[in-house]
Amino acid sequence: MAKKLKIIPLGGIGEIGKNMTVIEYGGDIVVIDCGIVFPDDEMPGIDVVIPDMTYLEQNADKLRGFLITHGHEDHIGALPYALAKFDVPVFGTKFTIALIEHKLHEARVKSSKLTCLNPSDTIQLGCFKVEFIKTGHSIAGAVALAITTPVGTVLHTGDFKMDLTPIDGEPININRFAYYGSRGVLAMMSDSTNVERNGYTQSEREIGKTFEHYFDVATGRVIVASFASNVYRLQQVADVAIAHGRVICFQGRSMEQVVEIARRLGYLKIPSESIVAVDQLKKYPDNQVCVITTGSQGEPMSGLFRMANSSHRLNIGKGDMVIVSASAIPGNEKGVSRVINALFAKGAMVVYDQMADVHVSGHACKEELRLMLYICKPKFFIPVHGEYRHLSVHKHLAEEMGIDSERIFVAHNGSVIELSPKRGVMQETVPAGMVMVDGSTNIEDAVIRDRKLLSRDGLVAVVITLDSENGRQLAPTEIISRGFIYMRESEDFIADCIEKLQPEIKKFENADKSEYAELKNNVRSKLKAYLNAKTKRTPIIIPIVVLI
Amino acid sequence: MAKKLKIIPLGGIGEIGKNMTVIEYGGDIVVIDCGIVFPDDEMPGIDVVIPDMTYLEQNADKLRGFLITHGHEDHIGALPYALAKFDVPVFGTKFTIALIEHKLHEARVKSSKLTCLNPSDTIQLGCFKVEFIKTGHSIAGAVALAITTPVGTVLHTGDFKMDLTPIDGEPININRFAYYGSRGVLAMMSDSTNVERNGYTQSEREIGKTFEHYFDVATGRVIVASFASNVYRLQQVADVAIAHGRVICFQGRSMEQVVEIARRLGYLKIPSESIVAVDQLKKYPDNQVCVITTGSQGEPMSGLFRMANSSHRLNIGKGDMVIVSASAIPGNEKGVSRVINALFAKGAMVVYDQMADVHVSGHACKEELRLMLYICKPKFFIPVHGEYRHLSVHKHLAEEMGIDSERIFVAHNGSVIELSPKRGVMQETVPAGMVMVDGSTNIEDAVIRDRKLLSRDGLVAVVITLDSENGRQLAPTEIISRGFIYMRESEDFIADCIEKLQPEIKKFENADKSEYAELKNNVRSKLKAYLNAKTKRTPIIIPIVVLI
Repeated sequence: MAKKLKIIPLGGIGEIGKNMTVIEYGGDIVVIDCGIVFPDDEMPGIDVVIPDMTYLEQNADKLRGFLITHGHEDHIGALPYALAKFDVPVFGTKFTIALIEHKLHEARVKSSKLTCLNPSDTIQLGCFKVEFIKTGHSIAGAVALAITTPVGTVLHTGDFKMDLTPIDGEPININRFAYYGSRGVLAMMSDSTNVERNGYTQSEREIGKTFEHYFDVATGRVIVASFASNVYRLQQVADVAIAHGRVICFQGRSMEQVVEIARRLGYLKIPSESIVAVDQLKKYPDNQVCVITTGSQGEPMSGLFRMANSSHRLNIGKGDMVIVSASAIPGNEKGVSRVINALFAKGAMVVYDQMADVHVSGHACKEELRLMLYICKPKFFIPVHGEYRHLSVHKHLAEEMGIDSERIFVAHNGSVIELSPKRGVMQETVPAGMVMVDGSTNIEDAVIRDRKLLSRDGLVAVVITLDSENGRQLAPTEIISRGFIYMRESEDFIADCIEKLQPEIKKFENADKSEYAELKNNVRSKLKAYLNAKTKRTPIIIPIVVLI
Repeated sequence: MAKKLKIIPLGGIGEIGKNMTVIEYGGDIVVIDCGIVFPDDEMPGIDVVIPDMTYLEQNADKLRGFLITHGHEDHIGALPYALAKFDVPVFGTKFTIALIEHKLHEARVKSSKLTCLNPSDTIQLGCFKVEFIKTGHSIAGAVALAITTPVGTVLHTGDFKMDLTPIDGEPININRFAYYGSRGVLAMMSDSTNVERNGYTQSEREIGKTFEHYFDVATGRVIVASFASNVYRLQQVADVAIAHGRVICFQGRSMEQVVEIARRLGYLKIPSESIVAVDQLKKYPDNQVCVITTGSQGEPMSGLFRMANSSHRLNIGKGDMVIVSASAIPGNEKGVSRVINALFAKGAMVVYDQMADVHVSGHACKEELRLMLYICKPKFFIPVHGEYRHLSVHKHLAEEMGIDSERIFVAHNGSVIELSPKRGVMQETVPAGMVMVDGSTNIEDAVIRDRKLLSRDGLVAVVITLDSENGRQLAPTEIISRGFIYMRESEDFIADCIEKLQPEIKKFENADKSEYAELKNNVRSKLKAYLNAKTKRTPIIIPIVVLI
């Protein structure tokens, strides 16, 4: 049987987050990206979710390295977990590798195999020849990948937009995509995030005008919240601030750290004399101050959150202008709104994306995605980086652009797409899914289910103490509850509950020990019915039988 | 001291939800609206939240009635709770009263004092003369209120938009607002929901074109999800469906009930022969079927949710087109997205607001709000129906329109705004806030705090059984946990925990009973430290001491 190319997404399909894709041919595997996703409201108490890497563990000997398209958490966040298992090289551009180094340092994971490549560089990994192609995104150092395999070239766009007037002066290398398109692309994986949006994403440069306007009219301090890694945004804010005679103060741990890295590597150009520490700010009148802070997603403990909640030394108030230069990531809407409300309540003027053009997306809209399909003319197409709705709409777009429906794979995490120069099939699957991490360990689904039940109606524990000889009660039945009712005001109700249970308990006098499971079941169902009738709630009930 | 007019919002300020405003003069009170708000992720397990009505209870003898602007839940939802306490008249338009009747019936609350008024009708309630003014909103029967008091006229816009080509053919009665504006308006309360959006909200009629287009291209069944109470939307869908030779099937409990009411009252005009029951649908070919269903917010158990999750007799699949004709209410984004993903996964074509103009808002945008301010020229202005951000932006707009900053009140729930013809002050406050209802009873904050803690890291209970004579252990220490770790796979870990605790327990041998509180504290802190060191998690720990 001839060897076939396998493309196996382990994350990032059917979701925006934890991107990870296996490219396998014969005895060689390379992995594109290694990200996390933040938990949603269905995963209470979980810190992060990482991809299931079972397939890589099973094929560890084939693994030639990780190829990282850019430094966002959903592309690099799971590397500390992966590199603790796999001692293989990691390739990325200078900024990407610097962010990974920082992340590994924080996680106390060592890797001596981090390797910087420049856009247009080419490396050989096993049978794969890999070229980095410059793109544009809301972070510096983003690249696409052209992976030439024995059966043809696979293009992975990474996260991209076609910004032809980018802040760093180096637009996406469309000509290189065209080179591969003309030569023949076997398969393309392309960013689906904004496929629902018509038209073309605005250039990052466009919002510079908005900053100009607000800095023109601001009479007090200007506080701008943005993502630390969006150095293009930071550069624009800094340039406008300096032109308006303001000094710049960076706030928030990740902001200060990323700015340090970006300035050291030359991605962010701000003269040192324009940057002041927060304790020096009082030397400057308000209209000569610009603060750039974390917290654009309303994250608790971020700079902006603490400023809005009076737990930051910068006491925001009347006269201050706050610009929230981001849009809320799905799921964060309420948190962002709470921070904006709190800032208004403190008397600040707040400018945010519903009101003014203070943010542009880092992802390509429909017309850019159409262009990418047209330029690269892939034989097979795999929409990636999107929920099922995005992948489905991207499939429709590819069909419009002339790709046969059977050559488009709307995959799932774990799908195995096997390609030969002529034929592509998607059938078997490998283990893939969410690995939920809470604290220092993984968490099972059953625990999450309990947490959800507990949060709904709380818990009631019933402690029954029996003589192991004859099943007689040796102590009064006790009821303890949390998250169900306010115990201090419900003593009578608790007493009623206990009274209802007593006959059930009495029935088991002189019963055999093996029947205590039945006692527990009876107590549970009796109490459940009574609580439901009285309160219309159904807490988790835990009967505890203590035998003396 | 001369009597003053008091305006006291008890809900709907600093939030979009549970609208309720007291208008008081001397011995008379009328209340505008009486709504609920649905709980957010900070209130696990809560069913609904209603306004705190303490102030009304304290002044029940003054209460002349409730004036309801329209029939949405955030305006009528708390009436079953209010009318159980206050036996006073309720005034609304025909459709509003019909929805209230239905709601009271479901809640088994009786009221014989529901009174229908038509737009332009006037009633006298105590010292207040109240006129209903026709407006337009995403529900039939919406009105504004002109309340003429001994010190001047108070205008309350209700929820409105200035749709000049509405589906019912009767635009908002701008001339009546102008009448009051010319005569002099003491104070105006105006809808702030969309004040952040520039321009003018599109007419409901505009999206008819979108429906035309999608019904033109649909080859199978068309399923439209919308709010049941938006009869204008339902009318447009029904008209287009019938014109395309399709029969209509309504699905979802509230959809079927509201459609019955709306048809009976003449708000919705659909010939009976065009409506078929779900079990009759199989008689028609797919391209002659239109289903109109609940579930546009992704609500679990709604029609669309069940269709997307294969628990509905309409088995959606390839060839079906689903139009989600709504936008996600803040907080519902993820739920809506999950349903759209599931529908795509079943092979349906899904059309939704990110892709196409299938929804318009029911609330006025900035230019309409500006017009309203210009026409009514209120002396005092109170932005309502919005979070603090919306109220603040609305205040800026009113300032732009020439209202002095001191005559604009950005209030809180419970603020008392005292007005005389010349002067307005906001100072004292009355009890106001959230009353959380879970099942059949109210819930205290402490219980909610526990639920949140439980959902984060779960719970660990430690059962210690002691001889009350000498403090010796009579049974082995037992640990029970929920939502913390998976017990079945953690037996060794549980055994370790117990071992760590044994010395603490032993210390209390021969101790006085009064010291058992200390034993519990010691067990809690010892176990907390151990669990945190081993798992980096901090569950709620409940030590239970059983004395024999």
